Amino acid sequence: MHVRTRVAIIGAGPAGLLLAHLLDRQGIESVVIDSRSRAEIESTIRAGILEQGTVEVLDRTGASDRVLRVGQRHEGVELRFGGEGHRIDFADSVGRAVWLYPQHEVLKDLIAARLAAGQDLRFEVTAERVEDAETDRPRVVARDARGGRVEIEADVVVGADGSRGVAREAVSGAYGGHFREYPFAWFGILCEAPPSSEELIYSNSPDGFALISRRSAEVQRMYFQCDPQDDPEAYTEEQLWRILRSRVPGTTLREGRVFQRDVLRFRSFVAHEMRRGRVVLVGDAAHTVPPTGAKGMNLAVADVVLLTDALRALLLERDTGLLDAFPRTALDRIWKAQHFSWWMTSMLHLQPDADEFDRLRQLGELRSVVGSEAGRAYFSEAYTGWPLPPAAADL
Amino acid sequence: MHVRTRVAIIGAGPAGLLLAHLLDRQGIESVVIDSRSRAEIESTIRAGILEQGTVEVLDRTGASDRVLRVGQRHEGVELRFGGEGHRIDFADSVGRAVWLYPQHEVLKDLIAARLAAGQDLRFEVTAERVEDAETDRPRVVARDARGGRVEIEADVVVGADGSRGVAREAVSGAYGGHFREYPFAWFGILCEAPPSSEELIYSNSPDGFALISRRSAEVQRMYFQCDPQDDPEAYTEEQLWRILRSRVPGTTLREGRVFQRDVLRFRSFVAHEMRRGRVVLVGDAAHTVPPTGAKGMNLAVADVVLLTDALRALLLERDTGLLDAFPRTALDRIWKAQHFSWWMTSMLHLQPDADEFDRLRQLGELRSVVGSEAGRAYFSEAYTGWPLPPAAADL
Repeated sequence: MHVRTRVAIIGAGPAGLLLAHLLDRQGIESVVIDSRSRAEIESTIRAGILEQGTVEVLDRTGASDRVLRVGQRHEGVELRFGGEGHRIDFADSVGRAVWLYPQHEVLKDLIAARLAAGQDLRFEVTAERVEDAETDRPRVVARDARGGRVEIEADVVVGADGSRGVAREAVSGAYGGHFREYPFAWFGILCEAPPSSEELIYSNSPDGFALISRRSAEVQRMYFQCDPQDDPEAYTEEQLWRILRSRVPGTTLREGRVFQRDVLRFRSFVAHEMRRGRVVLVGDAAHTVPPTGAKGMNLAVADVVLLTDALRALLLERDTGLLDAFPRTALDRIWKAQHFSWWMTSMLHLQPDADEFDRLRQLGELRSVVGSEAGRAYFSEAYTGWPLPPAAADL
Repeated sequence: MHVRTRVAIIGAGPAGLLLAHLLDRQGIESVVIDSRSRAEIESTIRAGILEQGTVEVLDRTGASDRVLRVGQRHEGVELRFGGEGHRIDFADSVGRAVWLYPQHEVLKDLIAARLAAGQDLRFEVTAERVEDAETDRPRVVARDARGGRVEIEADVVVGADGSRGVAREAVSGAYGGHFREYPFAWFGILCEAPPSSEELIYSNSPDGFALISRRSAEVQRMYFQCDPQDDPEAYTEEQLWRILRSRVPGTTLREGRVFQRDVLRFRSFVAHEMRRGRVVLVGDAAHTVPPTGAKGMNLAVADVVLLTDALRALLLERDTGLLDAFPRTALDRIWKAQHFSWWMTSMLHLQPDADEFDRLRQLGELRSVVGSEAGRAYFSEAYTGWPLPPAAADL
C-alpha cells in the first residue's frame, strides 16, 4: 500500500501524537503509525509529572481536556535528608506548578482527539526503515499486522519512535550518540494503599535514594535505588517494605499489596544528529534521560512545539530557516535537561563508590539548596520547566 | 620559659591573628606564636578574594583600616565558556560584593594592629605539641629560635597553625579527617603587565580551565589547569602564554615578564573533630578547600567569629554551650563551602577522564546557571559569602 502525506510520523507516543495534533491545527496533514495496538499503548502504565508548560500546551490546544480536571496539581515536593523533610514550594519560589497525570492518560486523550478529528492513525504498523532522507520526498517503509508492505511518502518524516526505533538509525547511525549508563537503577513498585504523603518525597538516605510518588487514592507508586542487576522477583514483599521504610526515615509509609514491580535502568542518551535532510527525530528517539528529573515526556513536548513551528514555516511558507535551526535550538534545552537529571540524580543517590567525603559534601549541597531562596528557585524553575519557545503561544 | 594566659593561639595567620584581635575586644587575653618570622609572614604572597562579611568584620572591628581603602571592590565576575563571556552581577543578584585584597596585606594590618595593642605575639616560636587537652589547663609546648623551651598554659588552646600544624594531630589524630585529592592542579603565574580585564574571568575551555585574576595596576596573577605532576620550570614563557591564550578564547591577554610560577595542588580536607576538650581547631588546621571558590581565608574568618563568641561565653560567663555547639555549627558552613568549591571546580574544569557527554552536560550546566536569575543568585550568594553567624554583629 502506498500512502502520500505531508508529514509521516513514526510512533504514537506523546511526541508523535501531539505533533500530529499541533500540525492539524496548522492545517498540515499527517499520517501516524505505531507497531503497537491501541490497547497496548493505552494500558502501558507510565509515570507522568507534567511541567506547567506541558499542561498549558495540552489544555490550550485541545489535546487533553482531562489534564486539568483529572490531573493533580502539585505546588511543591519534599527533599528529605539527614532525617528531616524540606519542602520546596514551587508556587512560592517561581509561581509555577507541576501536574501528576500519567502518560498513558495523556495518550488516551490524544488518541481520542486524533481519531475524532479524522487523523490517519495506524496501529500495528511497524516501520522497517526510512529511505531517501536527503531528498524532498523521504519515505517510511513499514509492515502492517498481516505482513503487508506499507509505504508512506511525505515531505518530512518524523521519528517519534523511541529509543529503540528505526528513525534514530536513519538520522544518526546505529550508535550515533552520546551515551551514559549510571551505576544504579530504580526498583519501582505499584501497591494497593492510600497515599503516604500529599506531595512527592525525594529521599536521600544513608542506604540510598527513594521516591514516594502517588498514582491515585487507592494505588501508589514508590521507588528505591537498587543495583541495575537486581532481579525484581528476588525480594519478598516484606523485604521491599523494609527497604522502603529505611529509605524514608521519619515518614510512616502506608503499606499494601504490591502488584507490580520492575527495575528501571538509568541511562542518558543524546543523538549526535537530530536531523538528516527531511528526517527529524523528536522525544526519546533523539534523547533519553534518567527518570529522576521527570523530564522525559516534557522534553518530547518541547521538541514538538519547536518542530511544529519549523514545519509550519517549511510547509506553509517554504522557509527552511527554522528547520535548519531546530537541532541547535532543541539541544539547548535537551542538555540543560540532561544536566538537571544528572544533578538531581547525583545529589540524591548514593554513588556505589562514595566515601564519607562525598556523602558529607552531598549533604552540604542539599542544605545549600533548601536553605537558600535562590537555591530553591533554581531547583523549582528546572523542575516545573523552563519556558517553552515563544512559538508555543501560537500553536 | 613558662607563660600563663587565657587563650594560647598557635599560628599567626589570618585565623590566629583575627581571633587574638576579636578576643582582645572582649577583654580576653591571649598569646599568639608562629614558627615563621614576621618578615616571612608578611612577604608570602597569597591571593585574597574577601567575602563581603569578611571585609565587614575586618573593617568594623578595626582589624584593617586599609581593606576598604586599598582593596578593590568587585561587583561581579565573568564565566567564560563556549567562546562567550557571561557576567555574573553580584550587586544585581544579591546586592553584595567581594574585595580583592591579598592575604599578606590582611596579615600586615593584623600584625600592626596587634602589636600596637600590646599583644603578646611571638614569631619564630615553633609549637611542638599540645598537652592535657582533656583538662581545663591545656598547654602548648614550643621552642624558640635559640632552642629554648616555651610552655604556654591556658584555659583554651586554639590550633590556627594550618594544614601541617601540630594542633590538628592533638585534636583529630594524624590522619583524622575526610580527604580528597583532585586529579588536576593550577599552574599559577605572576607577571608584569597591566590588567587584561576589570573583573576576574573564570574560563571553561575545551583545553581546560583558566582564571584571569589581578593583583595591581602593574602585576597580574593568572592560573591555568595543569597536571599535578607538572614541573613549574618545564615551560618557556612563550609556552605559558600560548596555553593561557588558548584557554580564554575571545579575550586578549596583556602579556609581560613572568617572574613567579608555581603549581597548586587541589585538595579538600575536613578534620573528623574540630575540638578535643579545651583544644579547638580553626581555619586550615581544621579544613582545606581547593582554591576555585576562594573560600579558604573566608572560612577561617567565619570559624573565628563563631569561636570568639563561644570563648566569650566560656571564659566570661562560664557557659560551655556555645563551645559544645561550635564544631557542629562551624561544620555546617564548612561542608557548604566544600560543596561550593567542588561545584565550581567540577563545573569549570576539564576532568581528565571526561567524554563528550560530560563536556556537553557541563556546558548545559553553565548555560543553566548564567541563563537563570535564580542560578546567578545561587552562585552569587555562595561566592560573596553566606551570612555570618548573628554573633558577628556584636564582636
